[in-house]
Parts: sequence; C-alpha cells; structure tokens
Amino acid sequence: MFESAEIGHAIDKATFDAVVPELREALLQAQYELKDQGRFPVIILLCGIEGAGKGETVKLLNEWMDPRLIQVNTFDQQTDEELARPPAWRYWRQLPPKGHMGVFFGNWYSQMLQGRVQGHFKNAVLDQAIDAASALERMLCDEGALIFKFWFHLSKKQMRVRLKSLQDDPLHSWRISPLDWQQSKTYDKYVRVGERVLRRTSREFAPWYVVEGVDEYYRSLTVGQTLLDGLQAALKASGQSQAQPHAPPPTPSLDHLSLLDSLDLSQALDKDDYNEQLVTEQARLSGLLRDKRMRKHALVAAFEGNDAAGKGGAIRRVTAALDPRLYRIVQVAAPTDEESAQPYLWRFWRHIPARGKFTMFDRSWYGRVLVERVEGFCSPADWLRAYGEINDFEEQLADAGVVLVKFWLAIDQDTQLQRFQEREQTPFKRFKITADDWRNREKWPLYRDAVGDMVDRTSTEIAPWTLVEANDKRFARVKVLRTINEALEAAFAKD
Amino acid sequence: MFESAEIGHAIDKATFDAVVPELREALLQAQYELKDQGRFPVIILLCGIEGAGKGETVKLLNEWMDPRLIQVNTFDQQTDEELARPPAWRYWRQLPPKGHMGVFFGNWYSQMLQGRVQGHFKNAVLDQAIDAASALERMLCDEGALIFKFWFHLSKKQMRVRLKSLQDDPLHSWRISPLDWQQSKTYDKYVRVGERVLRRTSREFAPWYVVEGVDEYYRSLTVGQTLLDGLQAALKASGQSQAQPHAPPPTPSLDHLSLLDSLDLSQALDKDDYNEQLVTEQARLSGLLRDKRMRKHALVAAFEGNDAAGKGGAIRRVTAALDPRLYRIVQVAAPTDEESAQPYLWRFWRHIPARGKFTMFDRSWYGRVLVERVEGFCSPADWLRAYGEINDFEEQLADAGVVLVKFWLAIDQDTQLQRFQEREQTPFKRFKITADDWRNREKWPLYRDAVGDMVDRTSTEIAPWTLVEANDKRFARVKVLRTINEALEAAFAKD
Repeated sequence: MFESAEIGHAIDKATFDAVVPELREALLQAQYELKDQGRFPVIILLCGIEGAGKGETVKLLNEWMDPRLIQVNTFDQQTDEELARPPAWRYWRQLPPKGHMGVFFGNWYSQMLQGRVQGHFKNAVLDQAIDAASALERMLCDEGALIFKFWFHLSKKQMRVRLKSLQDDPLHSWRISPLDWQQSKTYDKYVRVGERVLRRTSREFAPWYVVEGVDEYYRSLTVGQTLLDGLQAALKASGQSQAQPHAPPPTPSLDHLSLLDSLDLSQALDKDDYNEQLVTEQARLSGLLRDKRMRKHALVAAFEGNDAAGKGGAIRRVTAALDPRLYRIVQVAAPTDEESAQPYLWRFWRHIPARGKFTMFDRSWYGRVLVERVEGFCSPADWLRAYGEINDFEEQLADAGVVLVKFWLAIDQDTQLQRFQEREQTPFKRFKITADDWRNREKWPLYRDAVGDMVDRTSTEIAPWTLVEANDKRFARVKVLRTINEALEAAFAKD
Repeated sequence: MFESAEIGHAIDKATFDAVVPELREALLQAQYELKDQGRFPVIILLCGIEGAGKGETVKLLNEWMDPRLIQVNTFDQQTDEELARPPAWRYWRQLPPKGHMGVFFGNWYSQMLQGRVQGHFKNAVLDQAIDAASALERMLCDEGALIFKFWFHLSKKQMRVRLKSLQDDPLHSWRISPLDWQQSKTYDKYVRVGERVLRRTSREFAPWYVVEGVDEYYRSLTVGQTLLDGLQAALKASGQSQAQPHAPPPTPSLDHLSLLDSLDLSQALDKDDYNEQLVTEQARLSGLLRDKRMRKHALVAAFEGNDAAGKGGAIRRVTAALDPRLYRIVQVAAPTDEESAQPYLWRFWRHIPARGKFTMFDRSWYGRVLVERVEGFCSPADWLRAYGEINDFEEQLADAGVVLVKFWLAIDQDTQLQRFQEREQTPFKRFKITADDWRNREKWPLYRDAVGDMVDRTSTEIAPWTLVEANDKRFARVKVLRTINEALEAAFAKD
C-alpha cells in the first residue's frame, strides 16, 4: 500500500513555480462553483507519518484556498464538552455545510491508530473502530459529501533523516515534538496498523490517497491536483448520477514516476548462474510443498504481466520439479457462460486450493481492474469498488492460512515488440500472437496507469505484489521461484 | 426488533386456501420471468428460532416453486473439502447463477450466532463476523443479487408450548432435536445475540424480515408474499436504476395486525390515581436525575406520535418537577437553512446532551422514516437506508452511556377527530390546528404502515420503542414518566 510512496517522488522548483499559479486559480474557481452549486460539502482528512507534511499541507490549503470557504479543524485533546458526549460528537459539530470545505487535521483515524499502536486494544476492537469509520463515511457520502483521505508517508529511513535534519537545525529543532520521537521508535508498528486501516477503509466512495511526503513540491502539487480533479469531477456530475462513485478516480503520479518505472529492467542472469539457481529453487519449492507444515497452508500464486512478459514460461519453471498431484494451473480467459452468471470473484473462489495444495492462476481476479477497466467491460463504479472487494477476498484467504503471492511480470515496450515479432516469425509460436496483442500494445499508457493503481491499492501486508523485472526471462523465472519459496518459509516460520 | 413477531399473527385456513392458488401462480410466473431475463440471482437466507418454521418453509418453497429453478442448500457440519478451505468457500460454491434462486438453510449467520451464544467469542469478534457478512452481502448486491433474509421468531412462551406439544405427540417427538432443547435453555441469549446481528445487518440492500412462526398459514403466506413483492419489484426495475435499492420495501403484515392495533387504547386512569401517580413519578425522576450515578449517563427522550396525541402535554408533565438547568426541550420542525446544509442526523447530534443532562426531542430523527417517507420529501433509497443509520446512531449514544427512551403516543382516529374539533372550537387552542393536520389525517393508513416499519426495524435492545396508549391523556403521561424512570434505574443498576 505504501510502496509507491517510497520511491523518491520529486518535482523541481522550476516546474512547481510554473504550474502552481494555474492550479491555484483553478482550485479557487472550483471552490466558488462549489459554493454556488451548494449541493455538497467537501471533507478532507489528513493522516500519516509524523513529519511527512500534514502540518505543511494544512498551511498550504489555507494559503491556496479562499479561507472563507474552508475551515481547518484540529482534534487534539478532547475538551470537557466533548468528553461528556459520545466520541463522534466532536466530528459532527465540525462538519462543513454544503458548499464548504472542511479539513480534519486529526480525525476519527488518529485515535484508533494511536490506541492500537500503543497496545490499548487488539485487532478485533480496532476493526470495530474501522467499521464505525466506514459506516460514518458511507453515510456522509450517501448524504452527498465528497471525501478526500490523504495519508502522508515516509519510509523509515526518510523519517529518520528528516528528524535528524530538523534536530540539527537550531531554527527548526523546536518543531520536533515528543510524539515525533515516539513515532520514530514505533514506526514499524504504526505503518503495520496504518496498512490494516487503509486496506479496510479504502472504498470506492472514499479512497485513500497515499502521498510520499519527502519532497515538498511533489507533495503539495499532488494534494492540490487530486483535490482539483475530484472537485471538478463532482461539480460536473449531475446530481443523481450513480454511474461513478462520488469520488475522484485515481490519478497517475505527477512526476510520472511509478513503481514500474523504478524497476531496473536490465537485471539479468547468465546461463550458468541461471541453471544453478533454478535447480536450487525448484528443489527448495518441492521440499517446502512436501513439508509437513504445509498441511496448515495452501499456496496461491497469481501471475499478471504485460503481454509476452513470459508468464507461461515462468509458470512452467515453477512446476517443473513438482508432484502433479500437488498443484494445478488455472488459465483465466474470457468467462464461460456459467461464470458470467455469477459475481466476478466466483470463478476464482471455485479454484481455491485445499490445504496442502498449490494453485497457479495464469491471469487472475485482477482482470477486473486491468483489462475490464481499460477495455470498458465494466463500469467505473464496478472496478473502483473492486479494489476493496479484492482486498477483502485476499484477507479471507490469508486468514485461512493461504499463502498468496502475486506477480506482475514487467517488460519494456522494446522488448515486447521484439518478442511479438519473434512470435510472428516462428511457426510454432504463431498461435501465441493475435491482433488483440497488437491492440493492447497501443493502450500501453492506459495499462501502465491501471497497473500502478492496482499495486497502490492492493499491495497489502497480507498479500503484497512482487514486481518482476522480466526483460531477462532467466532473471524473472528465478525471482518468481525464490519469491514463492521465501513466502512459504516466512509463513512456516510464523506458525 | 422482534416485538411485532410476538403478537399472535394468524390467518385462518379458509383465507389461506383462497389466497394460495393465485400466490403460487404469481410466484411461478415471477420465477419464469427471472429465468427469461437472466439478469440477477435470488438468494434466500433462513434463520431464527428452532421450531419456528424454517424447515417447513424450505419444504413449502420446494413445493410452491419450480424446483428446476430453485436450489436448497443446507449447511450443517462442514465437509472435509470445506474444512480444507476458507470458511466462505462453502457458500460461494453454492451461489445460484443469474436467473435462479438459492435457498440457504443454515448460512453465514448460523455459525456466528452459535459461536457467540456458546461463548466461544465476545462481541468484538462477533462484530468482525457481522461486518464480513455485511461486506459479502453488499458485494453480492452490487453484483446484482436480490437477497431476502427471513428470521423466524417465536416468543419464549410460544417456543416452550411448541416443544411441549411435539414431545407429547408420539408421532412427532422425533422431530425435537437436542439442539431444540438446548436452544430452549439458551433462548434469552440467542435472542439477544440475534438482535445484535439483525440490528447491524439489516441494511437497505438486504433487510431482514422477521416472521412470527406460530401460525403456519400466516408464516407461509408472509414468506410467499414477501418473495413475490420483492421479485416483481426487482423484475420491473430497469437494470441501472439506483433510485431504490435492489430489495423490496417493507410490506404491511398480511393479517392486518400490527403492534399498534394490539394496543389496548381503552386504558385510563381516574383523576385521583393520576394525581397520586404523577406526583410520585415526577419526584422519582427528579431524584434520579440528581442521583450521583447520573454523572455517568445522559438521558435522551424522543417523542413521536399521532397529531393531537398529547406529546406536548406529556413533555410538560415530565419537566414539571425538574431543575431547568438539567433539561432541555428541542422542538423539531422543518430544518433551518443551516440544518438543510448538513446530513439529516446533524441537527440531532448538535443537541445531544452532556453527561448528567436530559434532552427531550419533541419529534425526532424518526421524521426521516415518517413524514419524509410519507410525504416523499426524500427518496425511497434515502429512507430505506435511514433505519440502519439510525440504529448506528443510537448505538453510538448507548455505547457512550446515554439512556435513550423513545415514545410513540398512539390514539385512534375518533379521538383524533374529537381533539381536532375541540382545538378549532377553543380560541386559545386554535393555533394548534392547521390545514396540515387535516391533510395528515387523510394519510392515516400510510402513517400507520410507516410507524409499523419504524418500530419493526428500530426497536432494539439498546433503544426499544415504547408504544403509549394515549386516548387517555392521564394514562399516557404516567406511562411516559414511569418508562423514563424505569429506564434510568435499569441503567444505574447495570453500572
């Protein structure tokens, strides 16, 4: 969930200065139209790592927007009046009216995060708070509110660097609160709890936007642009249209840097290393699947990737040394009649392996947010709610002991072209290339955005995505096998 | 939640025999249209008290419907195959395809109910199961499924009578399972847990229908008619319409017996008794509000009722002996501009009292499902989701120690007419009667249905409705005061 916010997003000052005037003008315009329409309020929640820019963002919004139409609410210690009433009362009293914007700096998430990190309660109670928050947001959204939820993120390393630099600067050391230091110690726990909270509350009607907080220009522009896109979409939507949830669709990152771009596709293995490592990993997998600790687990591997990225070949290498009674490969193509008559997850549920078994999905339930999104086979409302539904689905698998590994095999456009041409020229490979493949290739940017959103919204602690650098097939195959083995070993170690 | 299912609903055999042929014909017709349209599946969940007719209903559905288009799934002990997979797998594999109906006899609710009743886990874990069930149902509904959830109910007394009669009958004693006897012992707990489950999972997209199970004819007709109404509404709805959730609206009970009708409106108090009891209860309330245990609680009383039922007079009697610093009366009329710019619950949240204080709402948040429903001030989707939102709201109050009492002051039409005429003829009362009152009077049946649904869906263990027989004002006033006092004492006793 946070991977895309640890890759060093940045925007240079010149670009920032050039873009900001127009953005501010457009935001103000949107604000006035919001006021004139008077149809709905806007609620902005700011959460995340201390030092990642929440405070600065509040200042920024105050500076960029018309302050008469935006109100910043901070929620620190409860007042006497608040303590004497149900906990939600303090938020209700500060809700912005229709036509206005309200920033909730500190909000219903702050308390549940702190409480869980400090061990005041366990996950079951955290989940009660999460569900109360979800119910509140759903109701606000049903009542017309447009909700933005920003999580400002820093990697552990970035956080330490930031604290250190503030501390060493006599002009700024006062800005470091005891809370900052405390969070530096509880970073891992805070991020783990945050991940659970985000996973369960990122819903189509109020998705989370995770913003990397290191670079001030990137952070500010991202928040501004997300607000603007969301506002404009909602202002344009006719009052009753339900075709799309009352929330902005995900937007590609402003510096055009995505997780996919951060991959080093030049990684390769020479033949000798490959042969040696492949056999080693294959033997390791074979052993792990026969391990008696496997009786408590099942293994599911989902393979997605660019066309011609080598999914089939990778899968064959995985199964090469395995007892065929232990595994099964499910090829996912267009749904059968029987499958079309069911909810889209049905055709995957039916192939979930029993404990002790291993199922590989050659393409998977992620088709909903990839091909179905890009090709318009389902409505935006459908694929937007799918992220949450998929996270729920995978959580059910994880809770039942299923070890879930998800691969995106990434190649660059040149490599794909080369492989397409090779397929066309090789008689026994010709069946592997169709007009569809060429058509998909033209939609490369659309797929890239869809993959980015998919990873951002569904790479979770319980089921992380593994991006596989697949320009070199040998490197990719070994990485796939090794990742599966490591996931199994990690699961066994936790038993 | 179960009150309406303990009032002895019954339909005589002659009526049953006369109605059934047409109902069956219409159900079959609907089934064939469901098949022809092939647009959505129908999922029927059967839950409730043992012996209240679940099994008989399954037989009935099999008999009445075309068995090729309906499949009954029972879920008892998990099979080996099921035990080896995530718990939800057994339900997914039995989902009916589009155009078909699936009956789930035993379902995702059975296990959570048993588990909680037997003390295998506490409410926090129950709530996790509840939320997983809600998420599943919401997803199924978003994917097009039409879901019916029936809870078959028996009062404790009725249950014992039924068990006894089966036991004494040598032909039928085999039908009593150990589970039945066990449930007879755990009846109170089962109903309490069931109430929590129903309260939290009765949502607009998949509401619960609570059916009194004593009378076979009533039970069968109710299930059949509810299915028919729901099917026909969904078949008629164009695919994309979101104006109304994909679920049937509540239907008035078939025997035209409602909780309101079961009231004995002739109850009265003579003047001496009234004066004595009124003073006693007023003094008791005054004492309770000054009790130091009140520091942990707040008191909220909501007054609803027929026009001219005496809400104002009752409220004045409640406050007569109270320190004015302790209480506040909120008159609820049409929302102000400021209130219209907020979610509808906002104008009630703002008046929630601090601990130690008492607020009376003269009309309340129930306006959403009464006047706004009847007058069409909001859409069916809005008022249908309001039941769940209101239950959530009241749960938040209860969790924070707020003691909540809700009154429906009921009079009959003759009494209302008499009071209207009296108001018109009494100069100082003339302001109390307007053209609106006469118009509302014409909508008596619509209001009666709305009140019935309101009580069925929002009378909960944490915030039960009190129906007040108000033809006699003295009787009503004393009952209101006594109910408040008893609620406070019960809350104090639990501290």
